[in-house]
Amino acid sequence: MMRFVELIEKKKHAGKLSRQELAYFINGYVAGEIPDYQASALLMAIWLNGMDPEETYELTVAMAASGDQIDLSAIPGRKVDKHSTGGVADTTTLIVAPLVAACGGKVAKMSGRGLGHTGGTLDKLESIPGFRVDIGMNEFVDIVKKCGLSVIGQTGSLVPADKKLYALRDVTGTIDNLSLIASSIMSKKLAAGADAVVLDVKTGSGAFMRDVKDAEALARAMVDIGKRSGRRTVALVTDMSQPLGRAVGNAMEVKEAVEILKGERAGDLLDVSLALAARMVCMAKPEIECEQAEKEVRSALSSGKGLERLACMIEAQRGNPKVLENEGLLPKAAQTVTVKAKTDGFISCIDTREIGICALLLGAGRQKKTDTIDPAVGIWMEKRLGDPVKTGEPLAVFHVNNTGGLEEAKMRFLSAVKTAPGKPRIPALIYREVT
Amino acid sequence: MMRFVELIEKKKHAGKLSRQELAYFINGYVAGEIPDYQASALLMAIWLNGMDPEETYELTVAMAASGDQIDLSAIPGRKVDKHSTGGVADTTTLIVAPLVAACGGKVAKMSGRGLGHTGGTLDKLESIPGFRVDIGMNEFVDIVKKCGLSVIGQTGSLVPADKKLYALRDVTGTIDNLSLIASSIMSKKLAAGADAVVLDVKTGSGAFMRDVKDAEALARAMVDIGKRSGRRTVALVTDMSQPLGRAVGNAMEVKEAVEILKGERAGDLLDVSLALAARMVCMAKPEIECEQAEKEVRSALSSGKGLERLACMIEAQRGNPKVLENEGLLPKAAQTVTVKAKTDGFISCIDTREIGICALLLGAGRQKKTDTIDPAVGIWMEKRLGDPVKTGEPLAVFHVNNTGGLEEAKMRFLSAVKTAPGKPRIPALIYREVT
Repeated sequence: MMRFVELIEKKKHAGKLSRQELAYFINGYVAGEIPDYQASALLMAIWLNGMDPEETYELTVAMAASGDQIDLSAIPGRKVDKHSTGGVADTTTLIVAPLVAACGGKVAKMSGRGLGHTGGTLDKLESIPGFRVDIGMNEFVDIVKKCGLSVIGQTGSLVPADKKLYALRDVTGTIDNLSLIASSIMSKKLAAGADAVVLDVKTGSGAFMRDVKDAEALARAMVDIGKRSGRRTVALVTDMSQPLGRAVGNAMEVKEAVEILKGERAGDLLDVSLALAARMVCMAKPEIECEQAEKEVRSALSSGKGLERLACMIEAQRGNPKVLENEGLLPKAAQTVTVKAKTDGFISCIDTREIGICALLLGAGRQKKTDTIDPAVGIWMEKRLGDPVKTGEPLAVFHVNNTGGLEEAKMRFLSAVKTAPGKPRIPALIYREVT
Repeated sequence: MMRFVELIEKKKHAGKLSRQELAYFINGYVAGEIPDYQASALLMAIWLNGMDPEETYELTVAMAASGDQIDLSAIPGRKVDKHSTGGVADTTTLIVAPLVAACGGKVAKMSGRGLGHTGGTLDKLESIPGFRVDIGMNEFVDIVKKCGLSVIGQTGSLVPADKKLYALRDVTGTIDNLSLIASSIMSKKLAAGADAVVLDVKTGSGAFMRDVKDAEALARAMVDIGKRSGRRTVALVTDMSQPLGRAVGNAMEVKEAVEILKGERAGDLLDVSLALAARMVCMAKPEIECEQAEKEVRSALSSGKGLERLACMIEAQRGNPKVLENEGLLPKAAQTVTVKAKTDGFISCIDTREIGICALLLGAGRQKKTDTIDPAVGIWMEKRLGDPVKTGEPLAVFHVNNTGGLEEAKMRFLSAVKTAPGKPRIPALIYREVT
């Protein structure tokens, strides 16, 4: 019989927890046998003394095993998953998953909702009239078989350990620990059952890991977990010093993603999407080289086959696929308000997190999980870092229904976007690949 | 409005908590507004990052203020308290308090019960037929006025913060931290209202702080708290490498203390008692030098005036003072069992904690707070460190009623007392004085 206080003692003296001890922790905590006050003492000891890669992996495995583990074996071929650590105007899933599917990869993805300054893929998809994300497992598998992709909400029984632990970490100052973040993300990826995972770790003013070194360390920790679990795993560290796309807001982001899949729009969102999709295709099809994968992805874009796959999924998930031809079928805000530059110069710095908060203030996001969102509203970014700007020129267009948060959003937006007399250095879009 | 998670964040980054923050912690925790899981996260952060002397003092003050603070102003003269960190055969209070009272000091002492391997003064006193420790505050003050001393149980409302925190620390691996130990002890001393405090910090195999350096650090931390609070405070670091007296067990310890107060018995227990009593008298009577205090204490012993004070208290607290003349009135065990040496040599090492556990197995102590004790049983130590011993010679005499734990106690006793061919180095009795 293990005594939990002995595990606390061990970690407080910077000892190494064994597989058995970490499983005992997770199983006991989920079962309610280990009380919150003991779990939080261990979490703080972990925060202060750290965990090595082996401990981090074993914690992740124990968490992944705490609930349902999805069996995707009924889907032929390699299943590839992706995960982004979250940001603003990060609409990559809506572009990447159809492109990968068009190249023959299978993307059976469980996504999350937006919270705080970050958006969520489920919310974006739900802005498509009729689209449902609460699809049962059998139908989910069938849709992936048919379309090559499906994106649904996490089932309630996927990694219950993470739900319970995250809530405790949130109120005990133990969120910001590399091993705990990595195990939280990767436990869900392991439980979701894909053969390979591409991770998009964001860095910059809109990311959880603002510093690129921290982002890279997180990427390494997650790739290490993936490898230990026998999953092919690769991570890109990508820039979130500004909103990735132009649109910040749910239906607006769907529209932008569709325009990209139609080949009507280029830019950073497309570039990051192509990079992620190429890596996913490369892992899904071991018989081809990665350069070949990149060519296939570009061809899936130019041929319109990616768009076809998106249409297939939308229809299969009860959405109206006509939104792809007629954007007027997407929810539209009652009015637009243009936010104009107050000075001449170049866009030198964007507090991306604040841009996310501005969209939230317009109704596009959630402060807390139970808030409802307005799918129509959001912000269209007219300028990107390094763009020249003149006084009075539009910086952004706000799409507005409820004007309650408008004034605060405008004020905060203007503070968040800085101009300078000289052209600034533009950060790299893709900092690093961790394999 | 303070957010508790910010205090956790501060301490986790090794920041310094302010008086206000520590008071917010203690008040909020006692009121049930701060949940256990947040308190335990802070305690672990304190364990790992420490607290400086100012924080330790402010924590202590906040804890002391969490319940009743005893007002001893109705007692004329200086009130001096003592505290021992606990050990085996540590019967000093029964000797020291009467001697100090005989010298004119006022000892209004709240004591505790035994737990685990350590004995408790309340249990010892209760072995005197009729003796009551649950005396009301007014009567307590009256007894001190009349006899110069009274020893009672802590009231339930003395430092509720310590009761609640200690229970949490016990199950979260956060007991063994210098600041937390010091604040736990000193908060009760501050709340108990004495003008001056003498601390007896034990070190060695029967002490909580086995290492003399740790014991000295604890002594310094407690003296620092005492000084900051305006109490004259002094600490002795004394040896607990072997049971301090010969008797381990409640009535047996009362008998030994009485014999010492009668001048019939010398040894380490007497020597430590004299040292403690001299310092208490010195603080109680600032008009005299400490050398003079020591002389007065010795004279209180030889004149029998100490014994008279003990008789006064026993009678006032409903006990039968005739036990002082007739030890047959104390509870007596049904049988004695002699434990004999298995080898020739010198007593080289005693695992004192184990001796305490052996007495507990005979029924003299408590494994958990709700256990009842047998006042009659215990162990009489025939040998001390460095004593020569021959095979078959008595090492100890067990006083036994219930024989259930006897065999285990004998076995463990023989393992706990080691002999060696050569005479060992005997540790100092009083290592250090911290003022």
